Amino acid sequence: MSERIWTAGLVVIGDEILSGRTHDKNIAQVAEWLQVQGIRLDEVRVVPDIEERIVEAVNALRVRNDYLFTTGGIGPTHDDITVDAVAAALGLGVVVHPEARATLERYYADKPGGLTEDRLRMARVPKGAELIPNRMSGAPGIKIGNIHLMAGVPHITAGMLDALTGTLEGGAPLMAETIGCWTAESEVAGLLREVVKQHDQCQIGSYPFFREGKVGANFVVRSTDADALAACTKSLCDALTEAGYQPVAGGI
Amino acid sequence: MSERIWTAGLVVIGDEILSGRTHDKNIAQVAEWLQVQGIRLDEVRVVPDIEERIVEAVNALRVRNDYLFTTGGIGPTHDDITVDAVAAALGLGVVVHPEARATLERYYADKPGGLTEDRLRMARVPKGAELIPNRMSGAPGIKIGNIHLMAGVPHITAGMLDALTGTLEGGAPLMAETIGCWTAESEVAGLLREVVKQHDQCQIGSYPFFREGKVGANFVVRSTDADALAACTKSLCDALTEAGYQPVAGGI
Repeated sequence: MSERIWTAGLVVIGDEILSGRTHDKNIAQVAEWLQVQGIRLDEVRVVPDIEERIVEAVNALRVRNDYLFTTGGIGPTHDDITVDAVAAALGLGVVVHPEARATLERYYADKPGGLTEDRLRMARVPKGAELIPNRMSGAPGIKIGNIHLMAGVPHITAGMLDALTGTLEGGAPLMAETIGCWTAESEVAGLLREVVKQHDQCQIGSYPFFREGKVGANFVVRSTDADALAACTKSLCDALTEAGYQPVAGGI
Repeated sequence: MSERIWTAGLVVIGDEILSGRTHDKNIAQVAEWLQVQGIRLDEVRVVPDIEERIVEAVNALRVRNDYLFTTGGIGPTHDDITVDAVAAALGLGVVVHPEARATLERYYADKPGGLTEDRLRMARVPKGAELIPNRMSGAPGIKIGNIHLMAGVPHITAGMLDALTGTLEGGAPLMAETIGCWTAESEVAGLLREVVKQHDQCQIGSYPFFREGKVGANFVVRSTDADALAACTKSLCDALTEAGYQPVAGGI
C-alpha cells in the first residue's frame, strides 16, 4: 500500500456563493469523490468573479497540491471568466478547442440560434488543454496540467467527476469508522485523547450534535491502514463501554 | 450613504468538511448575515485541523479584510485547536477568561461530572479577548481584535451571529433583485453584457438551472444604490421582453 499522501486543492469561483444566494454543494461532492480516489482534499478557497483573485487562489493551491480543481465560471456569460483566469495564472494563451467546438456545433445544431458567438465561448480553453466529457450539456470541462476546471451547476460537476473516476493517480484511500454515543463530548474528551495517543496511525474527529432534545456525539476514526483502523475503533468502543456508555457502531 | 465597502473573510476549520463527511452550512449562513450588516464576504478558506494551516489562513484574511470570522474547533476535545491557533497567529498567550469560566460553572453545575478540566478548555481565550454570548450551550464565542471565533455546529453559530447583529460597523447593504427566465443563458449572454455596460453601479450574475426538463436562468442584479438597482432591473426586463422572453420578477 502506498504511503505517499496525494492531495488536492479546490477553488470555488462565484459571487453567488459569497453572497449567500447559492448554497454550495460542490465542496462536499468533490471532497467525497476525492476520498474514493485516495486523494485528500487539503484546502478549499471560495473567491469572487474577479480575475486577479482567481489567479491568486489557483496559483497558491496548484503548486502545493498534486491536483487542483475549480468549480464555476465556465459558462457562456460575461461573468464566466475562469478559463481566462486559469490561462493567465499559467501564462498561457486562450484558444478555441476544435473538439469542443465540434461538440457544441452538434449540441446546438437543432436549438434556436445555433452555435452563437456567446455559446462558442464555452469552447475556449487555455492553450494545450484537454477536455473533460460532459454528458449533461454541450460544454465540456477542461484539464490543463494538474488543474481540472469543472462546472458550477452541481449535477454537471457530478457528471464530470464521474468521467474522471479512476483516471487520477492516488494513494491508499482514507478509511473511516464512526462510533456514536449519547454523551456530551466534553464528558469523554480525556478518554478520546488517551485513545488517540495509543494509536498513532489513526485520527479521531469528534462531532457533537443536539437531537431529540439530547446531546450526543459521533466519533470518526480515520486511517489509511485497515488493521490500525480496526484496532483503534475497538479501543474506543471498549473505553466508552468501560466508562459506562453504550457506543453505537456506525454512528447515531 | 457610505461609499466605503466593508469586507470580511471566513475561515472554516475542520477535517470533517474536507473529508466530505459534514456538509458545511456555515458559509451560506455567515454570507447571508454579512449582507444584512452591509459587509461583503470577500473570501472563504476551508482548512484542516492543523495549527500552522489555521494560522496561515487567519493571518492572510485578517489583514486584508475589515473583519475575520472563523467557524469550528472551539469545543472541548483534542481536535479543537482554534483558540491556540488564533492566539499564535496574533502572537498572544492563551488565558482562562473569568466570565467564560463563571458561565461554564453555572452551566455544568447540575450536569454529571461538573466543570471538568476538559470542559474548562472552552473558557480559554487569546489574552485580551471578549466573549460572544452563546444562548444554546455554555461555551461562548470569542472576539479578539477584528477576529470572531464561532462554533462549528450551525445552530450555535446562528445564535452567536444573532448576538453580534448590529454591533459591527458596515456600509450600505448590497441589495439584489432577481429576474427569472425560461431560456438557456447562452441565448441571452449578449443582451446581458449590453445591460451591464449601461449600468456601471450594478453587477448582474447569471445562474442557470435545469428544472422540469427545461433550461432556465435567474439573473441577479446587485447594487448598493436603490435607484441604480431599479433602473438596471427595468432595463434587463425590457431587453428580455423585447427579445421575446417572459421575464419573471423575483426569479423562477
